[in-house]
Amino acid sequence: MKKSVFLDYAAATPLEPRVLEAMRPYFTEKFFNPSALYLDARGVKKDLNEARSLVSNLIAVRPTEIIFTAGGSEANNLAIRGIMESFPGKKLLISAVEHESVRAASELYKVKEIKVDAYGRLDLKDLSRKIDDDTVLVSVIYASNEVGTIQDLSAITNLVKSVKADRKKRGMDAPIFLHTDATQATLFLNVSPKALGVDLMTLNGGKIYGPKQSGALFVRSGISLAPIIYGGGQEKNLRSGTENIPSIVGFSVALEIAVASAKVESKRLSEIRDKLRVQIEERIDGVIFHGHPNKRLPNHLSFALPGYDNERLMMELDELGFMVATGSACSASSFEASHVLTSMGVSSETARSTLRVTLGRQTTEKDIQTFLKALASLCVK
Amino acid sequence: MKKSVFLDYAAATPLEPRVLEAMRPYFTEKFFNPSALYLDARGVKKDLNEARSLVSNLIAVRPTEIIFTAGGSEANNLAIRGIMESFPGKKLLISAVEHESVRAASELYKVKEIKVDAYGRLDLKDLSRKIDDDTVLVSVIYASNEVGTIQDLSAITNLVKSVKADRKKRGMDAPIFLHTDATQATLFLNVSPKALGVDLMTLNGGKIYGPKQSGALFVRSGISLAPIIYGGGQEKNLRSGTENIPSIVGFSVALEIAVASAKVESKRLSEIRDKLRVQIEERIDGVIFHGHPNKRLPNHLSFALPGYDNERLMMELDELGFMVATGSACSASSFEASHVLTSMGVSSETARSTLRVTLGRQTTEKDIQTFLKALASLCVK
Repeated sequence: MKKSVFLDYAAATPLEPRVLEAMRPYFTEKFFNPSALYLDARGVKKDLNEARSLVSNLIAVRPTEIIFTAGGSEANNLAIRGIMESFPGKKLLISAVEHESVRAASELYKVKEIKVDAYGRLDLKDLSRKIDDDTVLVSVIYASNEVGTIQDLSAITNLVKSVKADRKKRGMDAPIFLHTDATQATLFLNVSPKALGVDLMTLNGGKIYGPKQSGALFVRSGISLAPIIYGGGQEKNLRSGTENIPSIVGFSVALEIAVASAKVESKRLSEIRDKLRVQIEERIDGVIFHGHPNKRLPNHLSFALPGYDNERLMMELDELGFMVATGSACSASSFEASHVLTSMGVSSETARSTLRVTLGRQTTEKDIQTFLKALASLCVK
Repeated sequence: MKKSVFLDYAAATPLEPRVLEAMRPYFTEKFFNPSALYLDARGVKKDLNEARSLVSNLIAVRPTEIIFTAGGSEANNLAIRGIMESFPGKKLLISAVEHESVRAASELYKVKEIKVDAYGRLDLKDLSRKIDDDTVLVSVIYASNEVGTIQDLSAITNLVKSVKADRKKRGMDAPIFLHTDATQATLFLNVSPKALGVDLMTLNGGKIYGPKQSGALFVRSGISLAPIIYGGGQEKNLRSGTENIPSIVGFSVALEIAVASAKVESKRLSEIRDKLRVQIEERIDGVIFHGHPNKRLPNHLSFALPGYDNERLMMELDELGFMVATGSACSASSFEASHVLTSMGVSSETARSTLRVTLGRQTTEKDIQTFLKALASLCVK
């Protein structure tokens, strides 16, 4: 039986062999509790702190600004809930294209959505209009998992900065923080929080060829969060529980590889992706591409094939040996049309004929050629 | 250099080789997101559900009653916060000898501590006295990580049942739930929630030779909890985030091995532990043993060596090749005397001369003999 071609790297990534190698000693030999006081345990604590230093160096922040979490959803929850619980009664704004873990955590508080345009880019005027003196947090995803669109974070940062300046001028000391979920951006873009101007940033190991449910939240020095998991006080009291050292070390190595290969992989994958796009357009009538044409993740293509049911297409492609997504796979079950697509003005009918194809380290140009053939064979009217 | 003898199994356990074997395919081959819809991803979803069935069978509950979490601290938080957030303004009672993750989560709510006796066993009269009509949750650790004492859960269950019956008689429909943290008990005792009569039970993979930050919360059917991590709705909406399949599968296998070997290991380790105890008593003057003399974990010994500083002793033992604990290692840093020991009436002076020795799968009788020699050499006055 021939091996299937995986084209759903936004949903999951295999563990990079070097990551597994880095994790291995911590499963069996260096299994000690880093809070214990004997020398071998203190060695593990040292390794934990080295992983923290590695991560902080890679994104050009201080080690004390890195909180390791059990995954990206947890990091998003820690950012949203951590801020909002610290400012009872205050408000937050999130973009209309956030991941479910930001959306669902936000719904516990006074939240409003910021509109996006037809490409999924944040409407800065709407953001400006909706920020008021009670707004304490703005959360905008760096790059969309569903449509691949990259946000103009520097414009958003500037807007938030001007709000800060205005508050200061008026003698108001109420803070306003900017959080970004960099889960899908990490493999390809600059993820230095200081360069981006964000106060909090989510990193997710499971989507960068690292361990599932690994990740970190960058928290700028001086910001104090409420924990969501209380206990022994690990991770500066923000994530109690004996540290998952193999996972943390694996995550740090996955991030190191991601940052080192970002440029080359971006170029390689965007070339393959662009060919795929052109050929889909040539071969299939009436195809609609979602998201921004060039401000987008290099590995990402989202498109509708009007008249076709996406779940059926996905199944047929699966039978032909190609794994693609109908939208986000991050939700345990969903029958409704994607909130991301509808917020961009895409009709629910078009949403239901939408496929997401995301490329990754194992993807070759040949994969794309065979995929195109398969897709065309299903879409000939 | 000779290998050190590890005698701190209550703080951390190495991954069992069979556990790592079971995890391996999910790192690289079966890395798919279980929420994706193609066949290979549905295969992973099936494996996830098989792990859930395995866990539920091992503790004789329904698969739908198992919520996988990222560790024992998270499971304890989910139990405490999950119930208390669902009943705003209501009260909970915890024993005076709980793990930090129960204590710290409880402090967010109206909480009172239930006294324990000199052995660390719950004072049932105090429990009875402190339960009032607003009490919605009682949390009692199954077996103490610090002193090894096993609680009489059936007596506690009966007391809670009689409260339920009394409320019913009086036409009150306010529920009262019983939670137990079975982290340290799982390797040796019956951990069937139905047999124990508990409504919620914490299992912790990292202390049973499974992956760190793996675990589960048993939640009896019909009890609805508030989540602490919101998002895609995984784990019945109680633990969002792409499931950590290698960790979940590893945890299920670790639990399988733990349950299968509980009787034999209990016998083997209690024999070694008893010899250790007798010989410490014979060789060292004035030693004070903590916890219950026989209602205790078979691998657990906690004792004070009056006149000796436990941190110094621990370091000296470490230099001689023996890793032991001064108390709980589950706290990231602590300078105060253990709340567990002080609640049992142990003076802070005695607490500061207390060592914890916990045995495990790699411990042999020879280890204990060499350890005794080392300890005696340090304690000769």
